[in-house]
Amino acid sequence: MTPASTALDAVFAHIAADQDRSLHRLMDYLRQPSISAHDIGITEVSALLVRLLTDMGLAAEAVASEGHPMVLAHWDGAPGAPTVLLYGHYDVQPPDPLDAWISPPFEPTVRDGRLYARGAGDNKGQHFAQLLAIEAHLAVHGRLPCNVIVLLEGEEEIGSPHIAAFVRRHAARLRADLVITADGPMPADLPSILFGVRGIASFELHARGANRDVHSGNFGGVVPNPLWTLVHLLATMKAPDGRITIAGLHDAVLPPGERERAAVARLPLDLAAIKADLGLDRLDEPAERGFYERLMFHPTLTINGLHGGYGGPGSKTVLPHEAVAKCDIRLVEAQTPEAVLACVAAHVERHAPEVRFVPLHGMAPSRTPMAQPFAGAIRDAIVAAQQVEPLLYPSLGGSLPDYVFTKILGIPAFVVPYANADEANHAPNENITLACFFAGIRTGAALLSYIGQTLGANAGMTSASVAGASVAG
Amino acid sequence: MTPASTALDAVFAHIAADQDRSLHRLMDYLRQPSISAHDIGITEVSALLVRLLTDMGLAAEAVASEGHPMVLAHWDGAPGAPTVLLYGHYDVQPPDPLDAWISPPFEPTVRDGRLYARGAGDNKGQHFAQLLAIEAHLAVHGRLPCNVIVLLEGEEEIGSPHIAAFVRRHAARLRADLVITADGPMPADLPSILFGVRGIASFELHARGANRDVHSGNFGGVVPNPLWTLVHLLATMKAPDGRITIAGLHDAVLPPGERERAAVARLPLDLAAIKADLGLDRLDEPAERGFYERLMFHPTLTINGLHGGYGGPGSKTVLPHEAVAKCDIRLVEAQTPEAVLACVAAHVERHAPEVRFVPLHGMAPSRTPMAQPFAGAIRDAIVAAQQVEPLLYPSLGGSLPDYVFTKILGIPAFVVPYANADEANHAPNENITLACFFAGIRTGAALLSYIGQTLGANAGMTSASVAGASVAG
Repeated sequence: MTPASTALDAVFAHIAADQDRSLHRLMDYLRQPSISAHDIGITEVSALLVRLLTDMGLAAEAVASEGHPMVLAHWDGAPGAPTVLLYGHYDVQPPDPLDAWISPPFEPTVRDGRLYARGAGDNKGQHFAQLLAIEAHLAVHGRLPCNVIVLLEGEEEIGSPHIAAFVRRHAARLRADLVITADGPMPADLPSILFGVRGIASFELHARGANRDVHSGNFGGVVPNPLWTLVHLLATMKAPDGRITIAGLHDAVLPPGERERAAVARLPLDLAAIKADLGLDRLDEPAERGFYERLMFHPTLTINGLHGGYGGPGSKTVLPHEAVAKCDIRLVEAQTPEAVLACVAAHVERHAPEVRFVPLHGMAPSRTPMAQPFAGAIRDAIVAAQQVEPLLYPSLGGSLPDYVFTKILGIPAFVVPYANADEANHAPNENITLACFFAGIRTGAALLSYIGQTLGANAGMTSASVAGASVAG
Repeated sequence: MTPASTALDAVFAHIAADQDRSLHRLMDYLRQPSISAHDIGITEVSALLVRLLTDMGLAAEAVASEGHPMVLAHWDGAPGAPTVLLYGHYDVQPPDPLDAWISPPFEPTVRDGRLYARGAGDNKGQHFAQLLAIEAHLAVHGRLPCNVIVLLEGEEEIGSPHIAAFVRRHAARLRADLVITADGPMPADLPSILFGVRGIASFELHARGANRDVHSGNFGGVVPNPLWTLVHLLATMKAPDGRITIAGLHDAVLPPGERERAAVARLPLDLAAIKADLGLDRLDEPAERGFYERLMFHPTLTINGLHGGYGGPGSKTVLPHEAVAKCDIRLVEAQTPEAVLACVAAHVERHAPEVRFVPLHGMAPSRTPMAQPFAGAIRDAIVAAQQVEPLLYPSLGGSLPDYVFTKILGIPAFVVPYANADEANHAPNENITLACFFAGIRTGAALLSYIGQTLGANAGMTSASVAGASVAG
């Protein structure tokens, strides 16, 4: 199972010699905004990636979807070797609040060993490391140790609304033995393999009162206040102790298996450090008792934003006429967005029928069995690249569209994050440490080598065994 | 008790002949912004009023207070006659949301018999009518039928934080037999006398979570969410049925007396029309059973604004790190802002000690006995000016600082609103009908005449009887 170490060492040497240039190429890439929520820069960046992949020697194109184009590339010059599908996303979160950034989000800046920019960690910096790893193998050896499919999405930050239809339509072009995603922060700032992700179901609640804002003295206590309507409705949806109190919402939740509980028990956890980093005296009550259980095995309901009425300086004695709450629910195996959103809709109808429930996007959760054979190759590659034993996480708290691989295509999927734990993804001053970026390139290179030497790994792998065993695995 | 009708008729004739000019002078006045919350235009408008009052023949000055200057003017050429203090406010509400105005808030525009501008009804249009009434008497007769004190405040829209200290310091210059305020909309769009006002206590609730916005997937269900904190806290402060559930808050509330209940029973009430105007299918539940009781005799808690997290287009899977709610409580006899704010502070400390409670301004409620002798003169003046029997309201739903007259100076206070019911005060497209504005000038003129002929009205009036009888009256 060990690759010719001289072959991989030559690639590592090439990567080391090329570090400065790699950093500046990433900075060039980050300089291009690609904000899917605002439809900014998508066409430009997808075209840029196709050029990059083509120049590397892959067959690349921007494939139209119902939404933003998918960047798809193949290298299949290793017949008989496994095929790895490397997934990432080239879109980024909106950068607001802009005034909280120390350097502007689209002017990549190195400070204290970190590269700051929107997308530095989530996800441009990470998939760019994977692409540079491919390039290094090709530069040194003229070939790759395994077959590779690169799939870069342009809508991950708006919930991947079209990737499911895309993989269904293009299943033949996406036939692979495993999927690897380099995304998210390394949970404990250590190399890790994540076997699953939570899903998500987003929605809005729109409350309306009168046809105009009115005077709180002339109408206070008489005219319905949409902010009170939302407060009272939301209070029926989640208890102060963190329990979601929406009927039926937990029906599909499968508790973790023994192997998952054991893996969680082995994970490092420094609650004091987490709280210090976040500036908190305490976490949510349930998280104080079971931090990872809470993040991996429980659905959670977050109010992402709530806005209504006066928010300017001073006071204004107004009774507002509209209010909106934006929420997301993180889903765990085996919840589906459709069923969860139906529960929320029924709850709203029962408790506040005057409130308009607007379902937004949803994404199913995913879990790959921890016993899956490629897990060993991934572990070995990480050790070869970083000399560290990786941590094994049954699930990530966040959401990636892994279900399209595990549930639609029936391919085991692994997340191998390259970014530092404090990458501040989705927040101002997003960053990746230079050490993480360079380690990511090395790890990407080692993954190709070790996967290439994993023979018969997919013996016995069927989509049924992947999907069915995902929870107990 | 009837004034020489020829004398008043001559004033009415002068007012009628001068209508066009009066309208354009009001438009000039409204063109000057005077937004107390943003400290815009206050100095300019107070100086403008001093010039106007001086030109009319009153001894006028802008008297410094701890905040914005008070415009104070006297005419005392009627020895032996009563003295009326005419109170109003020259500051206006902020005009936002600007894009909801059909014509800009500080470009007064006449459309369909109404004058649209910020301050048209609240309060410039109304006190300007009173000033024009004084001017008309002086122009026709060279004198007024009674002594007059004009007091125009520049901080009413931010809660009159300094008027109490001002009237205490200048009590000798404010000695009067009654106070009349022309403010607020005519509740049923009919001439009315209001004997009281609700008080107000405003506050903010500031909740903080982590030291930055974080990702709802990486931290949802683990990191405290300030929006959930506020939702759960607010839900403990008011029940869905409208009852305020803050311990001790109702302790001082005095139920209405027999005379007040009888007056309320005589008031017209067209709930269907109110709902149609506001575009509502239903009012708050308690208001459907007792609309006026709710507005006059019950404290009400309004969320004026609640803001936290993402509010832009699309979705953003963020867990916000701060949220703020702005609230006001309308107070009824004999609540005090101090005691009510102390109850709220204790409630917050008990239910969510991590939330920062920020008390803002407060204003006590006020009630004048409905049997007060000047009530008859005011009723007669309204009939003379408008040929309509006025409605009698024990209280207004809104707040005016009448308590400084009734409770600090011991002077009975009456509100005689001139503005149409749909003046849209505190909202976009604030307006006054031209008919209301002109009727206001006539009413103001008649009030001076009838008050001038009210002899011995203040026999037996003591501050004790005013303050003590205010609730049962």
